[in-house]
Amino acid sequence: MINIKSEQICKLEKQYRRSLINSLVGYKSLNLLGTISNEGITNLCIISSAFHLGADPPLLGIVIRPERAHNDTLTNIKSTGQYTLNNVLPEWYMQAHQTSASYSSGVSEFDTCGLKKLYTDRFKAPFVGQSTIRIGLELREVIDIDINGTTILIGEIIQILTDDAMITEDGTIDHVKAQTMTVAGLDAYFLPQSVGRLAYAKPGIEPHELSTSY
Amino acid sequence: MINIKSEQICKLEKQYRRSLINSLVGYKSLNLLGTISNEGITNLCIISSAFHLGADPPLLGIVIRPERAHNDTLTNIKSTGQYTLNNVLPEWYMQAHQTSASYSSGVSEFDTCGLKKLYTDRFKAPFVGQSTIRIGLELREVIDIDINGTTILIGEIIQILTDDAMITEDGTIDHVKAQTMTVAGLDAYFLPQSVGRLAYAKPGIEPHELSTSY
Repeated sequence: MINIKSEQICKLEKQYRRSLINSLVGYKSLNLLGTISNEGITNLCIISSAFHLGADPPLLGIVIRPERAHNDTLTNIKSTGQYTLNNVLPEWYMQAHQTSASYSSGVSEFDTCGLKKLYTDRFKAPFVGQSTIRIGLELREVIDIDINGTTILIGEIIQILTDDAMITEDGTIDHVKAQTMTVAGLDAYFLPQSVGRLAYAKPGIEPHELSTSY
Repeated sequence: MINIKSEQICKLEKQYRRSLINSLVGYKSLNLLGTISNEGITNLCIISSAFHLGADPPLLGIVIRPERAHNDTLTNIKSTGQYTLNNVLPEWYMQAHQTSASYSSGVSEFDTCGLKKLYTDRFKAPFVGQSTIRIGLELREVIDIDINGTTILIGEIIQILTDDAMITEDGTIDHVKAQTMTVAGLDAYFLPQSVGRLAYAKPGIEPHELSTSY
């Protein structure tokens, strides 16, 4: 076993450290973040920082990094108050990855990377046509993190666009059926396989699988 | 395609909504969170809210929910300033899930759920012996989220305990080799399979796989 300590971590070569630290936490939620400017220019970027914050009200958090040219994204979200999160599928994950390239301001990654825009009523921000799970959010809170200059955005889930077949009996999304991918680190993409669903844990009761088929 | 809107979401039956909203974001990072009180009582709970916040300084965020009896955890982290995150493996994921049961204060989930404590020098909080990727963190920031009463904790990575074999040439952790699991929603556990690693994206260059073996 090795123990990599603080003083060694800060001496690691920059790219190596970035890959190591980015991948430490495990598999991350993978989504395409869709926005539109007040001038009607759409923007799309791949993110792996979305996290569940609460079910009532239904809230998700995302991290926006200043150095990664998400400035259009942040500007769009702040000015329109809306954004979408869309899952990524194996058939077109390379196109999704390509949205992380530093395109000039004014270029829409939807068009350049071949991803279809999907609009719904009462919602300005574009969804991704090819996705199977799509979430429309309204901005609720902006938290500036002084320690590293990132911004945490908290959004409320306003719309969920999917197919009935993707939702199991108890409400849980079937991400295997939805073909949702996950990512580790900066560039390693994965497709998970089910191991089991476990019953609600109680003291004194042995952990066991749920009897549902999924 | 269905469009579940705000007014429908808030009318959903409570458990159904909880399962739906928790699973929307996709696969989540799965970790056991280890702490110790000033009196030396250890605590362990399974979490799926850890997120990467930045590599320099190396930072992770976690969400602590007030209603889920993580109070010992939060008290411990605030009083000692330290905590650990440890990955979960298929061989003992049911024991990891069991740490979510509401045990009385003073009962250590390490002992009750059969998980081994591992200590290192210069670090009070216990790691999980059976894990293959273990992260020691020091608390840097506490953010109270007024909108739903949760707390976001930001911690700096101080120690990384793993085996050399788990780290690939460029620094990325090999989570397949590490047998790291992931979770969707509250109770659906998965083991991912690699689809591909993609090269750094640049405008005008077609997306393509890295030539590395992992």
